[in-house]
Amino acid sequence: MTAVATTTAAEDLAFGLTRVVGLPALTEAAGAPLSAEDIAAIVAEADRFAREKVAPGWQEADRHGAVYENGVVRTPSHYPGLYRDWIEGGWQSLAAPAELHGVALGGQGLPGALWNAVQELVLAADASFALGPLLTAGAIDLLCHHATPAQAAAWLPPMIAARWSGAMCLTEPQAGSDLGALRTRAVPRGDGTYAVTGQKIFITWGEQDCSENTLYLILARLPDAPPGSRGISLFGAPKFLPDGRRNGIRCGGIERKMGIHASPTCVMLFEEAEAELVGQPHRGLPAMFAMMNNARLAVGVQGVAHGARALALAEAYAAQRVQFGTPIARLPDVARMLAEMRATTLAGRLLALEASAAGDRARLLGDAGAEARLALLTPIVKAWCTERGVENASLGIQVHGGMGFVEEAGAAQVLRDARIAPIYEGTNGIQAIDLVSRKLARDEGAAMRALIAEARGLDARLDAALEGFARATEAVLAAQARSADEAQASAAAYLDAAGWVFGGWMLARARAADAARYGALAEFYLRRLLPRAAARGAEIEEGGAVLALLAG
Amino acid sequence: MTAVATTTAAEDLAFGLTRVVGLPALTEAAGAPLSAEDIAAIVAEADRFAREKVAPGWQEADRHGAVYENGVVRTPSHYPGLYRDWIEGGWQSLAAPAELHGVALGGQGLPGALWNAVQELVLAADASFALGPLLTAGAIDLLCHHATPAQAAAWLPPMIAARWSGAMCLTEPQAGSDLGALRTRAVPRGDGTYAVTGQKIFITWGEQDCSENTLYLILARLPDAPPGSRGISLFGAPKFLPDGRRNGIRCGGIERKMGIHASPTCVMLFEEAEAELVGQPHRGLPAMFAMMNNARLAVGVQGVAHGARALALAEAYAAQRVQFGTPIARLPDVARMLAEMRATTLAGRLLALEASAAGDRARLLGDAGAEARLALLTPIVKAWCTERGVENASLGIQVHGGMGFVEEAGAAQVLRDARIAPIYEGTNGIQAIDLVSRKLARDEGAAMRALIAEARGLDARLDAALEGFARATEAVLAAQARSADEAQASAAAYLDAAGWVFGGWMLARARAADAARYGALAEFYLRRLLPRAAARGAEIEEGGAVLALLAG
Repeated sequence: MTAVATTTAAEDLAFGLTRVVGLPALTEAAGAPLSAEDIAAIVAEADRFAREKVAPGWQEADRHGAVYENGVVRTPSHYPGLYRDWIEGGWQSLAAPAELHGVALGGQGLPGALWNAVQELVLAADASFALGPLLTAGAIDLLCHHATPAQAAAWLPPMIAARWSGAMCLTEPQAGSDLGALRTRAVPRGDGTYAVTGQKIFITWGEQDCSENTLYLILARLPDAPPGSRGISLFGAPKFLPDGRRNGIRCGGIERKMGIHASPTCVMLFEEAEAELVGQPHRGLPAMFAMMNNARLAVGVQGVAHGARALALAEAYAAQRVQFGTPIARLPDVARMLAEMRATTLAGRLLALEASAAGDRARLLGDAGAEARLALLTPIVKAWCTERGVENASLGIQVHGGMGFVEEAGAAQVLRDARIAPIYEGTNGIQAIDLVSRKLARDEGAAMRALIAEARGLDARLDAALEGFARATEAVLAAQARSADEAQASAAAYLDAAGWVFGGWMLARARAADAARYGALAEFYLRRLLPRAAARGAEIEEGGAVLALLAG
Repeated sequence: MTAVATTTAAEDLAFGLTRVVGLPALTEAAGAPLSAEDIAAIVAEADRFAREKVAPGWQEADRHGAVYENGVVRTPSHYPGLYRDWIEGGWQSLAAPAELHGVALGGQGLPGALWNAVQELVLAADASFALGPLLTAGAIDLLCHHATPAQAAAWLPPMIAARWSGAMCLTEPQAGSDLGALRTRAVPRGDGTYAVTGQKIFITWGEQDCSENTLYLILARLPDAPPGSRGISLFGAPKFLPDGRRNGIRCGGIERKMGIHASPTCVMLFEEAEAELVGQPHRGLPAMFAMMNNARLAVGVQGVAHGARALALAEAYAAQRVQFGTPIARLPDVARMLAEMRATTLAGRLLALEASAAGDRARLLGDAGAEARLALLTPIVKAWCTERGVENASLGIQVHGGMGFVEEAGAAQVLRDARIAPIYEGTNGIQAIDLVSRKLARDEGAAMRALIAEARGLDARLDAALEGFARATEAVLAAQARSADEAQASAAAYLDAAGWVFGGWMLARARAADAARYGALAEFYLRRLLPRAAARGAEIEEGGAVLALLAG
């Protein structure tokens, strides 16, 4: 048997886009063909940008962090220049549309799956930096769906050029997962605009010194709003108004966090900020959730990126660190840790590409099945890939031994940075409930059964795991029919099982496409890691009894 | 069914010592009986010390950290006073012997299992602080076995009083897990003492401003030493010599670490330091490893302590944080996370008590079976409990949602502090190899088979898991017979399976002792968490194939 091969993230991404999720055929069917060479060239260029421009300042960014003083946030000293490089590279425009409502926006209109690949590379290089453009991309996506032609013309071109950033303003102190509890209010000013007043917390890149302007997308209540989550509207408000005045928006402080130190997490204070309604009154939550699905996928990609960075650091260390007369990479338990990191990182990477390619298929070809596939995979990618990101960051520390705990090595920073991803854009618990109570329940499991059926026939071990997962699916559906609480008590285990099974599916597909490069890694995963899905299945079957133990 | 009950760590510890591992009967058989009331009173006093004296400065200690300047290390400003409280409480003497070689040492001679309970409470309150006394205890233990009467008389009384601390000096830049590669040398000075010269790294509490003197226990080579691990001797050298002169020992710097910021991790430079040989020439490694077994158990307890602190913070937060109209502790997925944390923390706690009670049984009653039990359980406690400590610290962050990532809440500090425990005192990979290649192999699995047999008959699910684990044991023994590498490729999975199975055994015993308080928690563990052992077993059976994939 050949050993697990080492390939770079960029190689894996180009391979995955081309040979596993079939982007050349998809783009050809959509009338804008991208060849394998085109894809490899764009990925290589993004990889160069990430390695040469973003990565070198990564540890300095962590040490310096974002600094708040009197309403102003200073990012690390190299960030404004790096952000100009990001603008000049035109990266933000990659997957944005070329035009909307007849207005030229400046986007390149490339597939979302390609954008995901670019994001992974930049997130791995410095997640704190990458988060700004990531959230701007989410805001662009939302505005493409809900902005009026005038709003699109005013806001989208500078955002797609990255001269403006976008900031998502959802959370309030009393309203975290429960957005229905939010209190920020918007009062009509009589000229078609609104005055927004309230306090938002945990606003990523809410204030910084990189972009020339920021568009805030804010959830708030109109005066006549019904209570709860059906009375929330969405507003857009720029930091600087068209006439150059500063809007009534300021940063009240930033959080001292475990990681992503250079990404300012802001308290934002809105004091009669001039804002425009985006979309329909009281329909802000559905609009925001559509954007969040996109952002959730991006956070899943962030999990993959942290695993990839952890792996790159650990492999480099293990290759040069000699103990017992050998590079430690050759010690069986260290080799085992590296193989686990490599296998789950590749599985997550391919799963995220599969999900975003489904998004492309839905958007470009109007494929309704692909739309359902995207909806189903999004919470799995978000939660499973971010869990693996944390786990792989921790394994990366372990490979380093004592040096892993010393900040100088960088491995510890990966874990500190990675730990946010299971929390934001909907905690992983919320993702599990979304998978079970919404995505599974809404078609009584039809899309999931279709996915399971499609995954069969590649590998005997995988087939057995799919069989067990199919039983778990029926068990969860039955639990959901009895009681939402019972299903929720097993939701996290169910999502985790889904991740292990479909991660195995992706690796089996990679092996089928290139056995020489990916066969051993797929084999390792299917023999060694896939049994974890069965353990989760056993947990799910205990769901009802467990709920009784939890609730008393 | 009744719900999972909440009990404090101190309650669990008193219960575990008395009702699960049977300390009253053990001490009675040894002729120095401790009643249930005695045990509960000592644990409650330690709990008060930990909560009232140690815990309040915990976050300040993290923020301030240890500070190095010109060879001097300043700990957080409250540490010297807190250390005086530690001395005045007489805690260090708890399990130290009253006399040795006819010399009165000042120890109280209480059981090691009781000392473990005290350590857990102090480690949970502030691990950085607790590490000093923890390492001093290891040094005391080592000297009790290997010091000459003169050394014992000079060094042990002030260490047992905690006026002196002990520091273990093993690692060098090129010699981490592979201590055979160390280069520090010791040259006879002609008067029976030695001059030690070399550089040691990662020396916990190597230099600080708390204790009045420090005894360094140093691994070094004599001039005539054979190469490798058979040529290493052990030396003792105080920071200040008996005549008050400063010895040739200084701190060259401290590491900037992910966590335990207030515990100085020192580079120590020995420049012809005056030292005495401890034990026999060239027999330093076996002496140090005897001490390390003790320290390894203590690090396992540290893992339990981090889980306990994470749980206490998470339960307090979840009880008061309201979302969707309810304290989040009542949401099924949050309740599930809290129950996992509580179940694995208690399992680890009881397993650590079982191991240290076995040590007491061996020492006080000369029970050879107990000695084998201790040897078998030590790597399991060290590795499994520290893995669970990291996992529970991470779950604790997750329960807090966004606040978990903000340092103010404390949950992030628990994870940052917890992450070192799987690394030091022998990485968890080293523990797994110790379990498989030494502890299991040396009696061809006899002690393990005896333990499995003893654990049977309490619970049907547990019996099934034990059955699977017995098969895994035979598989690992067979692999070991074929090739050490093959066994090592499965060692981590085997150790993890052992932890899950024997953790379940401890909870089944807790249920048998008090079903009202621990029945639901045991049930939760056996239904929901025990399946993880089977997944690990499946991995082990793939060992040979996996090794081929790793090695090529």
